[in-house]
Parts: sequence; C-alpha cells; structure tokens
Amino acid sequence: MIELQLSLKRVPTLLVLCFFLLLGNFHKADARIRHYKWEVKYEFKSPDCYKKLVITINGQTPGPTIQAQEGDTVIVEVNNSLETENLAIHWHGIRQIGTPWFDGTEGVTQCPILPGDTFKYEFVVDRPGTYLYHAHYGMQREAGLYGLIRVAPNDPEPFAYDLDRSIILNDWYHQNTYEQGAGLSSIPFQWVGEPQSLLIHGKGRFNCSSSPSLSTAICNTSNPECSPFVQTVIPGKTYRFRVGSLTALSALSFQIEGHNMTVVEADGHYVEPFVVKNLFIYSGETYSVLVKTDQDPKRNYWITSNVVGRNRTTPPGLGIFNYYPNHPKRSPPTVPPSPPAWDDVESRLAQSLAIKARQGYIHKPPTTSDRVIVLLNTQNTINGYRHWSVNNVSFSLPNTPYLVALKENIPNAFDPISPPDGYDFVNYDIFNVANNTNATSSNGIYRLKFNTTVDIVLQNANTMNKNNSETHPWHLHGHDFWVLGYGKGKFDMKNDPKKYNLENPIMKNTVAVHPFGWTTLRFRSDNPGVWAFHCHIESHFYMGMGVVFEEGIDRVGNLPSSIMGCGQTKDFHRP
Amino acid sequence: MIELQLSLKRVPTLLVLCFFLLLGNFHKADARIRHYKWEVKYEFKSPDCYKKLVITINGQTPGPTIQAQEGDTVIVEVNNSLETENLAIHWHGIRQIGTPWFDGTEGVTQCPILPGDTFKYEFVVDRPGTYLYHAHYGMQREAGLYGLIRVAPNDPEPFAYDLDRSIILNDWYHQNTYEQGAGLSSIPFQWVGEPQSLLIHGKGRFNCSSSPSLSTAICNTSNPECSPFVQTVIPGKTYRFRVGSLTALSALSFQIEGHNMTVVEADGHYVEPFVVKNLFIYSGETYSVLVKTDQDPKRNYWITSNVVGRNRTTPPGLGIFNYYPNHPKRSPPTVPPSPPAWDDVESRLAQSLAIKARQGYIHKPPTTSDRVIVLLNTQNTINGYRHWSVNNVSFSLPNTPYLVALKENIPNAFDPISPPDGYDFVNYDIFNVANNTNATSSNGIYRLKFNTTVDIVLQNANTMNKNNSETHPWHLHGHDFWVLGYGKGKFDMKNDPKKYNLENPIMKNTVAVHPFGWTTLRFRSDNPGVWAFHCHIESHFYMGMGVVFEEGIDRVGNLPSSIMGCGQTKDFHRP
Repeated sequence: MIELQLSLKRVPTLLVLCFFLLLGNFHKADARIRHYKWEVKYEFKSPDCYKKLVITINGQTPGPTIQAQEGDTVIVEVNNSLETENLAIHWHGIRQIGTPWFDGTEGVTQCPILPGDTFKYEFVVDRPGTYLYHAHYGMQREAGLYGLIRVAPNDPEPFAYDLDRSIILNDWYHQNTYEQGAGLSSIPFQWVGEPQSLLIHGKGRFNCSSSPSLSTAICNTSNPECSPFVQTVIPGKTYRFRVGSLTALSALSFQIEGHNMTVVEADGHYVEPFVVKNLFIYSGETYSVLVKTDQDPKRNYWITSNVVGRNRTTPPGLGIFNYYPNHPKRSPPTVPPSPPAWDDVESRLAQSLAIKARQGYIHKPPTTSDRVIVLLNTQNTINGYRHWSVNNVSFSLPNTPYLVALKENIPNAFDPISPPDGYDFVNYDIFNVANNTNATSSNGIYRLKFNTTVDIVLQNANTMNKNNSETHPWHLHGHDFWVLGYGKGKFDMKNDPKKYNLENPIMKNTVAVHPFGWTTLRFRSDNPGVWAFHCHIESHFYMGMGVVFEEGIDRVGNLPSSIMGCGQTKDFHRP
Repeated sequence: MIELQLSLKRVPTLLVLCFFLLLGNFHKADARIRHYKWEVKYEFKSPDCYKKLVITINGQTPGPTIQAQEGDTVIVEVNNSLETENLAIHWHGIRQIGTPWFDGTEGVTQCPILPGDTFKYEFVVDRPGTYLYHAHYGMQREAGLYGLIRVAPNDPEPFAYDLDRSIILNDWYHQNTYEQGAGLSSIPFQWVGEPQSLLIHGKGRFNCSSSPSLSTAICNTSNPECSPFVQTVIPGKTYRFRVGSLTALSALSFQIEGHNMTVVEADGHYVEPFVVKNLFIYSGETYSVLVKTDQDPKRNYWITSNVVGRNRTTPPGLGIFNYYPNHPKRSPPTVPPSPPAWDDVESRLAQSLAIKARQGYIHKPPTTSDRVIVLLNTQNTINGYRHWSVNNVSFSLPNTPYLVALKENIPNAFDPISPPDGYDFVNYDIFNVANNTNATSSNGIYRLKFNTTVDIVLQNANTMNKNNSETHPWHLHGHDFWVLGYGKGKFDMKNDPKKYNLENPIMKNTVAVHPFGWTTLRFRSDNPGVWAFHCHIESHFYMGMGVVFEEGIDRVGNLPSSIMGCGQTKDFHRP
C-alpha cells in the first residue's frame, strides 16, 4: 500500500484511474480479508444544498463503497459515535451463509450497537455482483447511512466493458427521521409527503429560492456539497454502471440522455441482456447496465432520476454525463429528457417481465413448492393508528432479537402464534377501500421447514384511499429468490401458477409488487437463521409491512455474544 | 385509592384541591411505596407555540410531579418508547443513600436504558423538600424530559402557609438536541445561541410573526398548548411556591409583580427567611418562597421569568398571577415589571450570600477539611474543538459506567490518572483570555477517602472571549454540601478561608459560581458510590465541564444487573 501511494504521485490521473479499474477486475484465486473501520456520527451536510443533520460514515454520505472479490471475508468494525442513539447496519444482498448473526437487522438478528461501542461485522461475500448496505434500525437509513458493495467475480463475466462505475440513487427529506417517525405514530396520522429532492450519488439540488425565508446559511445552491453529480466518460468506450437505489419511498426512472442502457445484472445475477431508454429501479434493487459513449462527444448529457409510481411533486434529480474533455460543469445544451408518466404501470410491469436469467447462467428453480404463502398487502387502522399489514397482521419488532430467542430457547420473547398463510381470498376486494377492522399487530413469525421450497405470492390491494394502490419493493434477507411471475388483479391460485416462468426466472433479493397486482417468488429454506422479508420503503416497514421467516434454527452455530445485550438477552448467560 | 376516586366525583373542585393540599401536609409515620409507571417517547408539542418534537413522559412535558412523604420509597418504572435512542433519568437532589446505582447518570452510575426496555428506579426519599428529575444522557434534558419531586416532611415545618404550589422554569430552543450537539462538536464550533423563549411550568410564547415565513401549522400563538401559565390564587392567603429551574443555559430572575417573596427553602433545606422582589435561580436549583396574596384583588398580576447573567435577547417568560374570581385570561393592566440589569452581578452575589441555614435547623459543618480541591473553570480549544475544562482537563464520559467498573474491578475502563487538585495558582490570570494550549481531555476521576471532609473551591475565569466570564451552577450528585463562601476575583488560599461561614451555612446540592469569582463548598465523603459534580448548563457538561468523585466503593452493595449492558459490562458475569 505504501509503494502504491508513492507511485501514484508520479502517474497521470487518468492512468491511475485505469489502474484501479483493472485492479477491480483482477482475477484473484485466494480469498482475502477486506478490513474496514467506520466511525458513524451525526454531521451537518447539504446533499441537496439544504443543510441538515445526517448520519455519516467516516465523514461521508453515501458511505464508502466496499470493494471485495468473490469469496473474500469482509470485516467492518463499526464505531457508534452517535451520542444517544443506537445503530445496526444491514448488508443488503449478502446471504450471510453461516453467519446469520451478522445480517445487521435490529430486533431480528442482533441487538443494536450502543453509543461508544464498536461492533465487528464479519462475513463472506460468496457471490459476485452489486449489493448495498444501510442502517436497519428505526428509520436511520433515511438519515444518510447507506452505501454500495461491489464484489468482483472469480470467473470471467459474460459481457465486456472498458470501465466500471457505481451510482447510488436516493430520495431526500428535510424533516428528520425522528419527526417522520413521530408523525407516523401520531393520531391523527402525519405523513411527511413526497421527498424534497432526489439524490444521484449523494448529490441533489433543492430550489432554495422556493422558500424565500431560508437563509443562505441553511440553503445555499452555491454550496460545493451540492454541486451536481458528474460522471466523466471517455468517448468511444463501453461503461458498466452499477446502479443501486436506497430511496426511502420513491420508485425511480433512471436515464442517461441520448444513451441506451443494456441491462446485464440484477441484484448480483446476470440478466439476459435487454435494452432500455430508462431503467425503472425500486428501493433495495441494484442493476448493472452497459452504456456505450457513442454520442456526439462535443457536449455533455443529462443524467436524470425521476419519481414514478406516485404522482410526483419532487423535481428530477439531475447529474451531468460529461464527455471528456468538455468541462464537467458545462450544462448540456438540451432540456433534460422527460420521464415516463408517473402512472404508466404497464411500462414498469413490462420491464419487470423482461428481466430473466442470462442463458448459460440459469439456476433452475424447483418445479414445485412445498408451501405457498400468500401475503395480502393492505393499509389499516389499528386503535386509531395508521398501519400497513400483511394478511391483516401489522408486524412489530420484539424487544429480544428472534435469532437469539429461538437459538437459545428464551421463552416469551415473541408471539408464538404465526401469522396466517393467506387471507380471505373469496371475499376480500383488492380493488376497493376495505374496512379491515379485524387487523391486529403482532410480532409472530413464520416457521419454515428446513430445506423446503417456499412460494410467496405478494398480493397488492387498494390502500385506504379510493382508487389507489402503491408499488411495494419487497426485500428478502439471507436469500436470493426466483421471480416466477407478475400479474394484474387478484392472484388466481388455480390458473396463475401455470404461467410461472420456470425456465429462466431471474434470481433477486428485492422485487416489486405493482399496483393492484401480484408477484410470485420462490426460494429454498436452506440458510439456517432468521430472516426478515419486508417492504423496502422505510416508512412502510416502520408501519408494519413485513414478516420474518425462521428456518433451520437448530443448525445455526454458536451465536456471538456481541449481538446480545438487549431485551431478554441483556443478562443472558448461555446455560 | 378507589374510594378516593369515587368520592372525587361528588366534591366540588376547589374542595378537592384543598383536600389534596392537606393530604400533602398530612403527617404520616409509615413509609409508603410510591409507584409510578412512565412511558417516555417523542411527540410533537408546542410549548411556546412553535411545534417541535419533544420527549414526553406519559404524554406530558414537564413530566408528572412526583409526590411523596419523607422516608417513602419511590419506584419509577420507565419504559423507553423512543425508537432508536437510549435514556437515563437522574433524581436531582435525592442522595440515593444505599442505592448509588439508581442515581440515573448515564456513564457514571448506569448504562443507558435501551428502546423497548423498562428500567425500574427504586430509591428512598430520605429528606423532605423540593427536588427535580430530568434526563441525564447526552443533551436529552433539553428535549423536555424533566419534572419536579415534592417530598412532604414528617415533622412540622418552621413556617406556615395555606396552599402549596409548584412552578418549574425552563428555557427553550427550537433547534433539536442532536443539531445542538453536532454544532458543539463541529469545527468551526457552532453555538445555538440564546434560547427562543422562557417557559413557566412548560408554557412560553414565541413571537411567531417575528418569522413571517413560519406557517401556522408550525407556529401558532392561538394554540392552546401555549396559552400562558396561570396561577390562580385566593386573596388573603399565604402561598408556598416551590420554584425549580431546569434551564439548559439561562440564569433566571423570577418575579411576581407587586408581591414580595420570602425565601424559606433552598434545595430541600430550610432558609433563614429573607424577602426578595425577584428570585435569582440557577439551573438545578429549587427554592420555596412564601407569597401573601395581599394586593388589590380586583386585577391580575404578571409572573415573569427573565434571563440574567447573559446579555439577554430572549423575551421574558410571562404568566398570569390570577386573583380569583378575576378571569384567568384577563391581562394585568400594567406592563410586566422590568427585570434587573443582566450584568448586575452584585445583586446576584448578594442574594447568594443571603441564603443561610434557618435557626434551629442548622447542620454545623466540620470546622476543618481533610482535602481541598480547587477547580478552575475555563474554556479551551483541544485539537481544534471547543471545550470547557476543569483544571485544564476536559471531562469525557467513559463507555463503561464508573460505578460498575470500580465495584467489579473491570480493568482499563477509564483513565487511572486523577485530574489535578488545583491549577497554576501563581501564574494563571483569571481575568484574561488564556492560551491554555496544554488542556487535555480525560475520563479520569477523583478518588476521595471515605468519611473525610472535602472542600471544593470553584474558581471562575475569563472565557475565550475578552472581558467575559460566565455564571456556572455546579451540581453535586449524592450529597448536600455546605456553602462556605463566595468571593470575587482569584481565591486567596491563605486569607479567604478565614472568612468562611461555619456558623450557619446553607446546605445545597447546586450552587452558582459568579463571573470572575469563586465559591467554596464543603461536604463529607460519606455516601458510598460514584458521583458526578458538574456545571448544570447542559452544553457545558456536554463540552467537558464536570468531574466525578468516588468514595467508599468497597462499601457499595451488590449492583443490580439492570444498570449493566454497555461497554465492558455488556458481557459482564459476576465472578
């Protein structure tokens, strides 16, 4: 490392960049340890020109990108320097095979990390691809604790590119997460509304002059922290862009003006290539797209991010696709491309359907399943509070993490009654506002028989507002699943399974269920542990839109004591 | 209790009130248990008409008043319903004899209470008087977690009154505590400035129209939550007002227009009565004053609270002293009385000197001390960060609470080197900005020999601004101390002790050191435990203005495991 740093001083910048890129693709047989030390704290930042308190990792939001090679062990020592607030970090898309205790899901797999403490996450990145990390505690993710994980493959990839770049997308609120949480937990319900801005790789732009009362100390568009994101490219090359979304709420349409994108990877799995003008991406998803820099090199182009799926009021996120050697701050001569209509569900459904496993890289799913769980997604009112529910059960986290409670047989840690495997298929009208007066709140979980095949049908429905059904990206911890199918309306248990794609379904860890539609996924309960499965919209999970699966708990190894210390694990002594 | 509730329905309100008041003074021989169950959470409140997130206890800020009888056991079961934030509550003025682990000082006597957990505080209120409680973790007190404790005496009191009322004073910021803390921990240092308003018993009034951009949803002076505090009084009576201050920053002058106040109690000790027009009160202090409702009963009068000791920009806190049966909302016909000049140190020093123990209730101090510790209070810069220091050591809390570390012999939990017992008396110029380049940060503590007499001389000095020295109210946990003397300028080790009041010094738990002055206090190290002693200004302690005393650790009983769970006590198993 010292030699490297010394040499850098003598090498022109562009060459250095190429060197690093080559390094990233370097074929390496021996697994290594990638050691990170992170300090997490609150700092004032102005990602969209509006100054607010954010959670940073080593002074940054988004946090540093973790770079590793397939098979490497990643160690992240997280020092919690928040003053009074705890912490947990989830490694989104990493299956944590053999280390379910390091999944980083507060209340499910671990106790939170206390202020002043250093927690050591240690796990193997067993598959190549593009993954994410983010806080998984309360609504902390929204405060800025998020980033990317890039895992380079040991084997050659089935597509070629010259350069490899990452772009992480987000939406951004000016209200802090405490305020948002208190609003969601209030009677009457107080909803924060649409985000103030969209961030492209941590940079957005709020129109400060829209609130003339804001002083430049609070909102200043000339603050370099909110200079637009610039992606400098060399003409005539093929770029791989790894695009991830960790929005709190928004489904996005991502676009590079005048450039087609060829989708080649989704959530770490190779995709049978298809070309799009705009990439629809939901919170928790990652994609790799190949982009050729084959357009007029005398100008720059817009990079845009736009809300879809909700009647957007948030202005587009804008970045600059900078053809070298044009000046990176030179605005493109055109207006940014228009986004698709926000309510064009068909286009989004079409893109979902287009994502299939790449020939030669197909993992065939089991042809039948041992258990089918249908999960109805609804909005409810319980005791006057607004909730989201799954089969009329609104999920709440217990005080003692499930993993410890189950592995160590701690009694009464959670409701022993499992939520139902379905809902009233016959009578429930998914197209209308329902009077779900029987909805309840529970921390009961699903117990899956180990090494079985499970089908999950996510059934969308009308919210508590007339003619409204939202898009929900569901994320499964500890697994990749096969996406067997999407459909409109109410899932037909008899006929719809016949249309499942069992030939070349993509494997993913996050998938959208579209408005008034359904999505079926299949997975093997082959990873001993306790795993959350939930809507990746921060407020939706907060309001109960999730479930938890246990599988093979008896096969889980000895739990590290570092994950304990809360609830009934506070005084826990292993017998 | 059930009988009482039933009967209440049939009794007119005023009678009921009188009944309760009598009950409060009722002579009771048998110690009882006073059981409270508190839910602590974030809620939106508008104490000064400006809506912000506050920490409430059972929906209230200030929290419920704890009422008990001398010798009672108070049990408070605190349920932490903050989502991601921990908690600790200090019982300010309660000595915790035999229960040092329930002092509620995070990092000193306990680990913080985790979200979802219920922590049971249990302690004896061994002395009658007026006390306080508040969060003692980070800067949580400022978020609204505070209240009063009233302990009725077993023996007759040396003064008579008809009615007994409480008023708690505070200052109020619109910036949240995270923002304030992040500002204090930033380079450059960002200071929140003077408070936006002063609260009288939780009610203040911010001038919403001073910021025309504030919508009425955020700031609304017609919000009933910020209707002025009203103290209804019956003409011709003598009232006891228990006045406590838990300001974040401000020293206050409290006044009831046209009414003299006779000071009779300070921090739970009877005061040789003296009459004031305005009561100076510092954060952490309590006083009882007797007030005769002997003025023109045809009108109302102002209750005022004003900042002193700082060049005030905060408008006065205003309440209504409502002579029954005038309408409680009827404004007094006069303008509120003018407060004393903010920089009139003489008047404040004079009132400090006037507070002496009441004849017949004097606890004589030991005539000599075994150890004298002089504590120089200065502002410093350490590694570019602004701090407050004591003898050039800026205090920082350790990750493992001292009480557990010391009692259980946990190694390396804190710096074993004690801070010095004095400073460079000869060369340090307290009247000028000092270049304290040798200031350091440490979590070392003072170890006191058990059952000895300790003198503390608090020496004030110039801050980092020219011609500026602030007022610091120092609060000692676990003890009452004798206030032996106050002086101006640099303490003279030879001559000043000769002027100490050893005849009738008041005992207190909080005492001010005035600008460019000194204050000496004496206490017996007779309460086994580990005790914080610190400036009660929230930001000053946060920035290092405190010390910790250990005494008789070997006499401390078995620690409850409920106080453990953080730092090195996380996996702690008693050997």
